[in-house]
Amino acid sequence: MSVVPHIRDANQAYASTFANAGLAASPVRRFAVVTCMDARLDPAKFLGLEPGDANVIRNAGGLVTDDALRSLIISHWHLGTQEVVVVAHEGCGMLAFSNDDFRRTLQEQTGHDAGDIDFLAFDDLEAAVQASMKRVRECPFLPDSYGVTGFVYDVGTGAIRQVRD
Amino acid sequence: MSVVPHIRDANQAYASTFANAGLAASPVRRFAVVTCMDARLDPAKFLGLEPGDANVIRNAGGLVTDDALRSLIISHWHLGTQEVVVVAHEGCGMLAFSNDDFRRTLQEQTGHDAGDIDFLAFDDLEAAVQASMKRVRECPFLPDSYGVTGFVYDVGTGAIRQVRD
Repeated sequence: MSVVPHIRDANQAYASTFANAGLAASPVRRFAVVTCMDARLDPAKFLGLEPGDANVIRNAGGLVTDDALRSLIISHWHLGTQEVVVVAHEGCGMLAFSNDDFRRTLQEQTGHDAGDIDFLAFDDLEAAVQASMKRVRECPFLPDSYGVTGFVYDVGTGAIRQVRD
Repeated sequence: MSVVPHIRDANQAYASTFANAGLAASPVRRFAVVTCMDARLDPAKFLGLEPGDANVIRNAGGLVTDDALRSLIISHWHLGTQEVVVVAHEGCGMLAFSNDDFRRTLQEQTGHDAGDIDFLAFDDLEAAVQASMKRVRECPFLPDSYGVTGFVYDVGTGAIRQVRD
């Protein structure tokens, strides 16, 4: 059964008490977040974001991918953000498989060759955050002043800890 | 001034009352969301998501990009999602510029040539959602049964309306 009836009902309830009309598109706190798509993560809650505070970019792994950089460049030049917070998390699904194994599974299950897709699985959480931070720092389309800070979120406690580089 | 001290404090408060330990990584409601990074959007709220319910993918535009597909393929095969809800929104910043203009700005401001980056600006919101839905349907690494539904979120009212295709 599709989730659509549930989200329609939930959205109707949300809209009936909506109180955030008139917010500007430019984030009030002038920052962006890159974090994982994981269902257990609610970045608005664990980072204390109010509506209008920050751009939020999410993907499998919470990685600064090419597409996340596209979003960050737009976030800086069009929406005025001055820094990004990258948040990976303990127990990330990206630690649980390898590119080669996953491509083999896809070949077996779908009959199609996924050899040209890099699924970006990783085996070291802190190193993945550090690599993401490096990508931000080295991006020629973000100013040297664009800040970047890395964290790991603990899905067992809700706490973040900083990743040094 | 960096936002980091603010988010540290907010996270400390969050962790001190954390009550979601022990959730599984696989989304309980077995779906994924693709939506925009826009600061005004809180998909957990406007779609009625509880912690653990859904994978949430966000980027500039809420588009099913290559990276969003990477995330969706992982979401389906590793985390068991069976459908995706794509949510664009009125007043999206992606409607406000063109690729060419933005590349010119970047060249002028940074001295670097962004000619090989497609920033994926669009001028028709519904068509952008429809193109995203098509990408999901045509992806060889998602089963034909993988559901896709498109919506536009109204930042002025909090309501979503479905996009037909």
